[in-house]
Amino acid sequence: MTPQLTQPQDPAAERDFVLGIDFGGTKIAVATATLGGRILRSERLETLAPEGAEQAVRRALAAAERLRAATEAAQGGRCLGAGAVSPGIVQDECIAFAPNVPGWEKLALPRLLRDGLGLDAVACVNDVKAGGIAEARWGALRNADPGIFLSLGTGIGAALIVGGQVLLGANGAAGEIGYLLRDALDTAGVRSGRAPLEEYASGIGLARRGAEVLGGRPTAAALFASADPRVRTLVDDALDHLAVHVANLAVTLDPERIAVGGGMMTSADRVLAALKRRLNESVPFPPSLVPAHFVQDSALYGSLALILDRL
Amino acid sequence: MTPQLTQPQDPAAERDFVLGIDFGGTKIAVATATLGGRILRSERLETLAPEGAEQAVRRALAAAERLRAATEAAQGGRCLGAGAVSPGIVQDECIAFAPNVPGWEKLALPRLLRDGLGLDAVACVNDVKAGGIAEARWGALRNADPGIFLSLGTGIGAALIVGGQVLLGANGAAGEIGYLLRDALDTAGVRSGRAPLEEYASGIGLARRGAEVLGGRPTAAALFASADPRVRTLVDDALDHLAVHVANLAVTLDPERIAVGGGMMTSADRVLAALKRRLNESVPFPPSLVPAHFVQDSALYGSLALILDRL
Repeated sequence: MTPQLTQPQDPAAERDFVLGIDFGGTKIAVATATLGGRILRSERLETLAPEGAEQAVRRALAAAERLRAATEAAQGGRCLGAGAVSPGIVQDECIAFAPNVPGWEKLALPRLLRDGLGLDAVACVNDVKAGGIAEARWGALRNADPGIFLSLGTGIGAALIVGGQVLLGANGAAGEIGYLLRDALDTAGVRSGRAPLEEYASGIGLARRGAEVLGGRPTAAALFASADPRVRTLVDDALDHLAVHVANLAVTLDPERIAVGGGMMTSADRVLAALKRRLNESVPFPPSLVPAHFVQDSALYGSLALILDRL
Repeated sequence: MTPQLTQPQDPAAERDFVLGIDFGGTKIAVATATLGGRILRSERLETLAPEGAEQAVRRALAAAERLRAATEAAQGGRCLGAGAVSPGIVQDECIAFAPNVPGWEKLALPRLLRDGLGLDAVACVNDVKAGGIAEARWGALRNADPGIFLSLGTGIGAALIVGGQVLLGANGAAGEIGYLLRDALDTAGVRSGRAPLEEYASGIGLARRGAEVLGGRPTAAALFASADPRVRTLVDDALDHLAVHVANLAVTLDPERIAVGGGMMTSADRVLAALKRRLNESVPFPPSLVPAHFVQDSALYGSLALILDRL
């Protein structure tokens, strides 16, 4: 007899799957995936943000139903739950601080998904936290405790991983580092509609400040590529401000590892060097600093990891 | 028959007790306490820091043995474990960043206590984290998740309570906010022997900076009480720098409640007003801000709470 090298498995459980939905400001990604996180089927839709939140959720739910039916037809098994990701601070009855899609702030997303999909197991979280959850489960933050996922792109945010779980905070707002005060000279904060660190050092912040120097409408990518000494100073200074606050985050949490993702990582060498300099100088036990594993689809994988964590 | 109003209890377990030791820079407090945290017997010793770490630990262990024997003799029961608290970052084989007592950094405190007391259940943590643990178990941070204990005194530090447990971090250094960079103009940090926020805004930092303004050797308490407009500006500015970083801590962790202790709370109104102003302006969901419950003995109660949490 040939020795059996693998454990026999329950064939029904093997065919079970989960749904993930990533609601972005411009695109929505929907996927079904195995319980191991391998994507089976996926679809991408336009958000059509100006047309409001309701139609976006309705079309996403329809796509989810299509994928679910197709996955069931192809392989049998049941859909065990759905994870969803959204910008803003996702709460049971609303999504706070998500001003870009009209009507989005009033969505009771968990309930809409539960009712719309007829599933009990539903979980929602914001996009940066989802990225952190995906890194913790499958990526660059595996076994890092604490671990920090930094998303440095058009916006900036962090996900704090403690004991393998993302730290939500009392209101789901932990890690919203775009609201950090740069220093004592910053007098206006979120209560005045401001996000001091994000306005200064995010992709959108850089683009706006670059326009003041160069005129026109330079993108953050163009500013990172520019050899103009004024622009180099602008970018280096923004990165240093980011680095000060990343170092302060590391002083506060004493993380084992920090993984950095987001659009700025197209200039990974420059970004990581700026962060590393501050971490090494001012953190009692400097954490390791690595690029995130997921470049595209970090939020979609996060939506899958989120629901898999709950099953 | 008279109805029985209380549950019958195991009389042996009722008599069991724990030991707590608070190693401070000038005093050592040792106590036995019930499993409910009521102190049964206590003793206070001089640390005699210049004479080194070894003699301090030896005398503390001797006192612990005396109290343990007296407690057993008085009420029976067994000592179930010991908690100890020390300045610095307590690790298994050393205590990092504890320069004030010669030899302290080389202490393997958990092992010394285990061997010296013949107890398996031994736990050690630093003084500020102990304060946070006491507040979470018996004080102002009960049921707050996350909760933050701030110690604002001669030094400054924080204990971050997540899911009822103090966050240690990868190296026991979480919450060491004295090392925070005030802003991007701070170029030197812990690697250069500096603690930027603590040097600027702690009691010791204030006293040093006050001496530069006034001459002599003013205490922080005297500076807080002074009507001299230069001194008022100095203190207000230091409190505002503290407040910026407390607000940033709250942006990062989204705590439900912050409890403030330490020597500066003799000027509680002024300290809390400065913190509240920044919290309300710049934190998406401002936490409640309250005085800590323990004024004296917060570290000693923390040593007891620490070991009771582990039993």
